[in-house]
Amino acid sequence: MNSLLMPALSGKSQKTRPYLLPELPPDRYYVEAPTPESLGNGSLIFIEDSDPFDRYTYRLRNILYSGKTAYQNVLIADTVNYGRALMLDGAIQSSQDDESLYHEVLVQPAMLRHPSPRDVLIIGGGEGATLREVLVHRSVKTATMVDLDQELVDLCREHMGTWHRGAFDDPRVRLVYEDGRQFMENDDARYDVVIIDVVDMLDNGPAQALYTRQFYELLKRRLRPEGIVAVQGLEFCFDDAAPHAALARTLRTVFAEVHSYSAAIPSFLSTWGFLIASDWFRPDEWTAHEVDATIQSKLGSQWLSHLTGDYLKSCFSLCKETKFMLSLPGPVIEDGVDLILPPHIEEVEKPYATFPIPG
Amino acid sequence: MNSLLMPALSGKSQKTRPYLLPELPPDRYYVEAPTPESLGNGSLIFIEDSDPFDRYTYRLRNILYSGKTAYQNVLIADTVNYGRALMLDGAIQSSQDDESLYHEVLVQPAMLRHPSPRDVLIIGGGEGATLREVLVHRSVKTATMVDLDQELVDLCREHMGTWHRGAFDDPRVRLVYEDGRQFMENDDARYDVVIIDVVDMLDNGPAQALYTRQFYELLKRRLRPEGIVAVQGLEFCFDDAAPHAALARTLRTVFAEVHSYSAAIPSFLSTWGFLIASDWFRPDEWTAHEVDATIQSKLGSQWLSHLTGDYLKSCFSLCKETKFMLSLPGPVIEDGVDLILPPHIEEVEKPYATFPIPG
Amino acid sequence: MNSLLMPALSGKSQKTRPYLLPELPPDRYYVEAPTPESLGNGSLIFIEDSDPFDRYTYRLRNILYSGKTAYQNVLIADTVNYGRALMLDGAIQSSQDDESLYHEVLVQPAMLRHPSPRDVLIIGGGEGATLREVLVHRSVKTATMVDLDQELVDLCREHMGTWHRGAFDDPRVRLVYEDGRQFMENDDARYDVVIIDVVDMLDNGPAQALYTRQFYELLKRRLRPEGIVAVQGLEFCFDDAAPHAALARTLRTVFAEVHSYSAAIPSFLSTWGFLIASDWFRPDEWTAHEVDATIQSKLGSQWLSHLTGDYLKSCFSLCKETKFMLSLPGPVIEDGVDLILPPHIEEVEKPYATFPIPG
Amino acid sequence: MNSLLMPALSGKSQKTRPYLLPELPPDRYYVEAPTPESLGNGSLIFIEDSDPFDRYTYRLRNILYSGKTAYQNVLIADTVNYGRALMLDGAIQSSQDDESLYHEVLVQPAMLRHPSPRDVLIIGGGEGATLREVLVHRSVKTATMVDLDQELVDLCREHMGTWHRGAFDDPRVRLVYEDGRQFMENDDARYDVVIIDVVDMLDNGPAQALYTRQFYELLKRRLRPEGIVAVQGLEFCFDDAAPHAALARTLRTVFAEVHSYSAAIPSFLSTWGFLIASDWFRPDEWTAHEVDATIQSKLGSQWLSHLTGDYLKSCFSLCKETKFMLSLPGPVIEDGVDLILPPHIEEVEKPYATFPIPG
Repeated sequence: MNSLLMPALSGKSQKTRPYLLPELPPDRYYVEAPTPESLGNGSLIFIEDSDPFDRYTYRLRNILYSGKTAYQNVLIADTVNYGRALMLDGAIQSSQDDESLYHEVLVQPAMLRHPSPRDVLIIGGGEGATLREVLVHRSVKTATMVDLDQELVDLCREHMGTWHRGAFDDPRVRLVYEDGRQFMENDDARYDVVIIDVVDMLDNGPAQALYTRQFYELLKRRLRPEGIVAVQGLEFCFDDAAPHAALARTLRTVFAEVHSYSAAIPSFLSTWGFLIASDWFRPDEWTAHEVDATIQSKLGSQWLSHLTGDYLKSCFSLCKETKFMLSLPGPVIEDGVDLILPPHIEEVEKPYATFPIPG
Repeated sequence: MNSLLMPALSGKSQKTRPYLLPELPPDRYYVEAPTPESLGNGSLIFIEDSDPFDRYTYRLRNILYSGKTAYQNVLIADTVNYGRALMLDGAIQSSQDDESLYHEVLVQPAMLRHPSPRDVLIIGGGEGATLREVLVHRSVKTATMVDLDQELVDLCREHMGTWHRGAFDDPRVRLVYEDGRQFMENDDARYDVVIIDVVDMLDNGPAQALYTRQFYELLKRRLRPEGIVAVQGLEFCFDDAAPHAALARTLRTVFAEVHSYSAAIPSFLSTWGFLIASDWFRPDEWTAHEVDATIQSKLGSQWLSHLTGDYLKSCFSLCKETKFMLSLPGPVIEDGVDLILPPHIEEVEKPYATFPIPG
Repeated sequence: MNSLLMPALSGKSQKTRPYLLPELPPDRYYVEAPTPESLGNGSLIFIEDSDPFDRYTYRLRNILYSGKTAYQNVLIADTVNYGRALMLDGAIQSSQDDESLYHEVLVQPAMLRHPSPRDVLIIGGGEGATLREVLVHRSVKTATMVDLDQELVDLCREHMGTWHRGAFDDPRVRLVYEDGRQFMENDDARYDVVIIDVVDMLDNGPAQALYTRQFYELLKRRLRPEGIVAVQGLEFCFDDAAPHAALARTLRTVFAEVHSYSAAIPSFLSTWGFLIASDWFRPDEWTAHEVDATIQSKLGSQWLSHLTGDYLKSCFSLCKETKFMLSLPGPVIEDGVDLILPPHIEEVEKPYATFPIPG
Repeated sequence: MNSLLMPALSGKSQKTRPYLLPELPPDRYYVEAPTPESLGNGSLIFIEDSDPFDRYTYRLRNILYSGKTAYQNVLIADTVNYGRALMLDGAIQSSQDDESLYHEVLVQPAMLRHPSPRDVLIIGGGEGATLREVLVHRSVKTATMVDLDQELVDLCREHMGTWHRGAFDDPRVRLVYEDGRQFMENDDARYDVVIIDVVDMLDNGPAQALYTRQFYELLKRRLRPEGIVAVQGLEFCFDDAAPHAALARTLRTVFAEVHSYSAAIPSFLSTWGFLIASDWFRPDEWTAHEVDATIQSKLGSQWLSHLTGDYLKSCFSLCKETKFMLSLPGPVIEDGVDLILPPHIEEVEKPYATFPIPG
């Protein structure tokens, strides 16, 4: 919600409430939600067109940037429903109103679980929020961020301050503008935590070289023994699990412990998958209580907006059908091989599931 | 996914996969996903218009019914992405591909937790799937379903067999076509479990009489002492928690224990809230292990598609921000009083959250 | 406007008018226009997707038929803005509210100009309205209609009575379900007027064989000496003239006199082109007065809803820029050759067109 | 078509044509049309939402300005299909590719017909193109343009140079930023031609004071005896004639000769109406030949892109149904009275129009 545009509306939309509004903590304040009338006529719309059949529109208040970098179409705009948002090649990447959920869930399980992450590598992460969630850990001495698209990073720096909050200027940061695969092939440093936060496409395009078995093998060589890898894991639900499952299978060819987790991101209109991979970490051996204690000691009680021990554990709890989908064998993503996903799976109507059921 | 239309496409879209497809359990089979080309030109679209700013389109293959009953606009259609779906007054109600998740989550926590539900009351639930999830419990001797709209129930009966699976014909069922509020005012039976599954609007319209303190007071008088109530709890996430929170507060004026839970429903493009209310049930005293044992003894291992003890527990785990939103005082929904929700709440940018952070 | 649904709305939307409504002729009546409120929530939409960039939605009240014939996707639906409409493969073909304009403009110039059309051939024209406009001429003894798609014709017969008005049952009609090109190659009858009313695609698909020089040569052999051909001539305006111009050039390789005309069809959201071809007819030698007299003697004063001498003449008056576009040389449509249209033409900014202009 | 973005595409979309492209006049050049592929993913869309049921989307390449002035929402953007365009409060006002048609048709009939327009008044016309079409007449000594919205005029000046072409800087121009009604009430100058080019709303809002009988009475007092008024006359076709007809009736209460004409404007997706009012000018007494001679003597052969004598005459030729709609009595637009338009008019199915027709 872009509060800057709100004051002008307050006279119009403020209904008289027959009750007193509760007092808020000092870091919160009330704003009236916009109405179609308060916005006036004239709809500027972004259409998410990554699904071949269904389309989702985001009504915009304001365009900050719309154009092309050398690598992608970029739109930075203030949406009505989710505040400022970054769209790349027609797909929403993150929005002001829920990026903290996305980035906490992507980054913090690995950073909290690692006993003391000192050197961190981020592949992708142009908005700077992944970097922010890494840098808040005082154990971190170096954070290397590798993003192909310097123009995009510059645009995020200019227009997305609530994401990076100055992170790019932290002296611990090394920014590398290079293809992540190429970087990985030439790099010889060692890392404690690696975060893969690149665009979500398994379309046999160039970004796919950041999702293959060969890439993860390179990556593993750069990890210290206790190292942990977190990977953004694509749209992921029981009804659309095939791409995430392929990614999980691929990671499993390289790492001993690979675990899927997920969180519903409102502005994505779906549940997003994540993967945490290492040779040692099993989520079921990490209690909610331990998570809470680690949060308290590493980050204090104020930094995180969403994660708690209880909530983080729930992200690893997948429903029965999702677990079945993840359990199926299938293709591994390999360099130079087009990924063809398995077909959709349907259920036969169950004979024992018809009423009246026999006594 | 409507498999009936698939065979014609198989020649076209079946890509040669360079791996063997894993064998599936006997109750599953593969279907190729449709492509825009396989569907041909000509897009028939349903537009979800319940949000004032953003719109979501559902591409349709086929219309089963489109018209008006005495109470609402009804569309029953085969969508491309979610199989058959029911839309009422412009809002999706349930879809073939994920209705089992929705209905298991709505119905089963209450039915599993109650030691032995004998008499069950359902308010709403036209599709018949809520009824189905109730009737599968053999302890149930009577299931009373009260829905205002007989025409709608008849349409669901005809076109939505995979939802009801014959449930309407079970001899334990009593169907009452009446306004739920009116029914409740005149009824004098007693119930073990009550499920409120009515349309999701807190818009000060007629359905609101099924969400007020006065309604829940009537309802409580119809509950046996160990009785449990489950209520569909509206769209619900940290960024859009106000309507659910009002509902929770209202239930809390009547019941000693009211607990929110949620599940991401793919075809709703959002996370849905649920409430379970009673005078005694606390979810944190119910372990995943106990849930699994109860499922095994009451339903066996095959009925449920989604719920497990672990997953059900995770539905009750809300993120920190959501819990904060639920903790705020605010208005209770009362008969004859327009509900005006509190304004949106924003966060002040935190000074301690800017980089580089001081040593 | 579908009047059948109107009565229910009248109470709601009838505003009190501070003036008397003028009395209407006996064949007209008033209906209140629908409002979004009178239609209720729940938008069923047809999306015209024939333009690669812009999309036009048609809100629907009611679906009469939605499915596939052996040849095309068919939708017959009641739109809110234009009454019943036929959509084929994602493109609107004709709508109840303006089909009389389209069909009068397509058929009547040729039928009125020919001194006494006796044998008429229609290629396409599934709705039956082209046939209707032909049969109203009492000089007609045989009307042969050749349409590939019998299922479509049957659907039109069932659902589009206000188009055909029984024309298919006129004893002068011969219906042939065959590809128009094939029919033309085997036919040996002679015709006075031929109407080509086929789908509007120059996309190098199968319908293109009905637009080539070779097709028109076959057709000419079937024409009597005074014969006239009318061709639906695609979307046509100064800014989008290339496909129509290619068609005109192609006809000019076969006929001595080929003339473009156009009419703005509201439900098409654009201006539509038509072509009239023969070896003798020049529109500028046909006065408005003569047209009016011919209408009076052949059809009387009541049949036509739109055409008058004055209006028909205006359809042949193209703007300066359109005439320039039509005057350019370019490719002719040939059997077996992909049609590649010339590029778009832009104007250099004119130096003499800048202000202040020198004295 | 925005040619600036074209060169980058040429390599990609230039198909090899099996024919030579005709040479163009020196002021024209070829550009390849864009393709969806050449534009890349990521759709930024403007939705025209002035119709309550149907929506038209304009895919955008580039946003020049998006914001609010004190009076209206403004979008200036490069569309893919129509070049640069100005949108006010959700409705397209004019586009680069067809504004010359709109502005020639609005301005030139009055300017050409008046024997020697010396003092011209424009109400509205923010883009500066109406001014441009006025100033090209060397008889003009003063051109007074009255527009409420200085911010809008400044935006047009900056971003819409191909519209105004410097007209605002012509020394004959007087720019007045004031409400047109208020200006008219206080003004005491006399004019030869007045052009009313204000937003197209008869919605009982503030702009309506520029459409009432009282406004036209004020205006008439400012006209010299041979004076002519041209009024933009709203969307206008036989199926949607009521607003234009009300405007025509209103003008007829003040002027002896009021004539409707129309032109199909591609980017408006409809036919637009215009009105020319005076006490003496009858279009049927003005021959195409006379128009052509006047164009030649006043403007030369190069200025106009669309108008010719023949085409201009055709704009005044309305179809039979449109003339019927215009002939009906009905309400006049008055100050302080809400305009309620007559209901829609439908036709009874004609009994004599059913086949087979009796011999």
